[in-house]
Amino acid sequence: MLEVNDRPGLRESLRAWKLAGQKTVLVPTMGNLHAGHLALVEAARQLADRVVATIYVNPTQFAAGEDLENYPRTPDSDREALRHSGCDLLFAPTGETVYPHGVEDAFRLSAPQGLASVLEGESRPGHFDGVVTVVSRLFCLVNPDAAVFGEKDYQQLLIIRRMVDDMGFDINIHAVPTVREGTGLALSSRNHYLDPAQHAAAQNLFAVLQETAALGAEVDADFFCLEEQAGEQLRRLGLEPEYVAIRRAGDLELPREGDRELRILAAVHCGTTRLIDNISLK
Amino acid sequence: MLEVNDRPGLRESLRAWKLAGQKTVLVPTMGNLHAGHLALVEAARQLADRVVATIYVNPTQFAAGEDLENYPRTPDSDREALRHSGCDLLFAPTGETVYPHGVEDAFRLSAPQGLASVLEGESRPGHFDGVVTVVSRLFCLVNPDAAVFGEKDYQQLLIIRRMVDDMGFDINIHAVPTVREGTGLALSSRNHYLDPAQHAAAQNLFAVLQETAALGAEVDADFFCLEEQAGEQLRRLGLEPEYVAIRRAGDLELPREGDRELRILAAVHCGTTRLIDNISLK
Repeated sequence: MLEVNDRPGLRESLRAWKLAGQKTVLVPTMGNLHAGHLALVEAARQLADRVVATIYVNPTQFAAGEDLENYPRTPDSDREALRHSGCDLLFAPTGETVYPHGVEDAFRLSAPQGLASVLEGESRPGHFDGVVTVVSRLFCLVNPDAAVFGEKDYQQLLIIRRMVDDMGFDINIHAVPTVREGTGLALSSRNHYLDPAQHAAAQNLFAVLQETAALGAEVDADFFCLEEQAGEQLRRLGLEPEYVAIRRAGDLELPREGDRELRILAAVHCGTTRLIDNISLK
Repeated sequence: MLEVNDRPGLRESLRAWKLAGQKTVLVPTMGNLHAGHLALVEAARQLADRVVATIYVNPTQFAAGEDLENYPRTPDSDREALRHSGCDLLFAPTGETVYPHGVEDAFRLSAPQGLASVLEGESRPGHFDGVVTVVSRLFCLVNPDAAVFGEKDYQQLLIIRRMVDDMGFDINIHAVPTVREGTGLALSSRNHYLDPAQHAAAQNLFAVLQETAALGAEVDADFFCLEEQAGEQLRRLGLEPEYVAIRRAGDLELPREGDRELRILAAVHCGTTRLIDNISLK
């Protein structure tokens, strides 16, 4: 596995592969890699000849007061994990490489309101603008044929797909199902913040989503009522819900008569830790 | 010359050239082509194997009350001019092709304040955000090796260069000197708005810039005083200056002790027509 941290090194590696006619797939991460990330790398290996993983904790997607400073950083174990998972190139840039003129003087991309202002966007103003700002940069720098994103961050996945379609990037976006512990808890770097009691409580999120999704898939289900009930249930189980929402899977709008592709999405607080999850209603 | 108007047709043409190892250069225009545009195409032919010109009057770079509706559109003569100038591909998309989700629901790029809020940016709020929004889309769609821009829109040229550098597009930006009438008037699609008397007055813009640039190149020149004098002179000659500014050529900041690369830039109103021009102080 090659490792480069600057733009010229990245370009040189990529150029050789492109000249050889090899297809490249990008796996963007913020590091602190777990089995969920490695499933992205595994999926990427099936999609193209060369897998480029990036590790960069992007400041522009964190709001003031969020966990930018404390976000777990584990470069040595990340490198080992990528090496053993068949990654061809690790690009782990500094801030100066991603934002050469500084974050304040950066060109910023903003996502359209409809998709980016609801759910996570409502809880985390500016978050998705930061995400598309950094992902568009990684797309420009790597110019991959494909890129892989996890369904765990479902709204992010939809926004990236829309960005690619809207702006005209010639990049195939591939989604990978969420990887879970045996208990059902979705893997997340933020699970490290949980103490054992919180970890036990956090497992209820997936159980409640499953139960609600099953009820929601029934004929004439009252989605608003189900969302309310799920919220109450989460509260009883020691989680503080920020939202529980049944939405159209394609655009996160409120379900309309006859919609078949639905998704239930939730964000909860478990102590001071914020967790998200989502599953299909089918 | 090929002509395509949709994304699949564009991709197909470009793919064939890329497979053949040919380099591509982009010449973005808003149509109504004059000798200034054709100089861009001529320069482009020297830079790469294949020249792609685009014609698209981009609504997001016009503010309310500007001349979007009246902007001159001459598709037939543009096509002929490009055909005779050695352009290989004309991409003349509709709005739906450039903004498939509509202008309101588009991902928008914004330029950093320092470079984009002064001079033209002060007179035309949001203008450069619209420019970088559409140019970044054309870069994504065409994915060229190089792109050509005129020095006539000097601030735009600097902002595009900065965008490419900041975001990491692998595209070489090539600048082409302003093309002028024998009288010195810079060629512009907006010159069509001028009646004969206004056209005669407009010629004074270049003369005043030349004179001021010569005085400004002298040792110990007082730039502020020269800008004031140039403004008064323009007014006497029937032009209403919006700004006359001597700035650092690289970043448009105020000149500092020892700066050698300077540019004088001006915007004037000639009747209801707004004209811009700029030259080097050397």
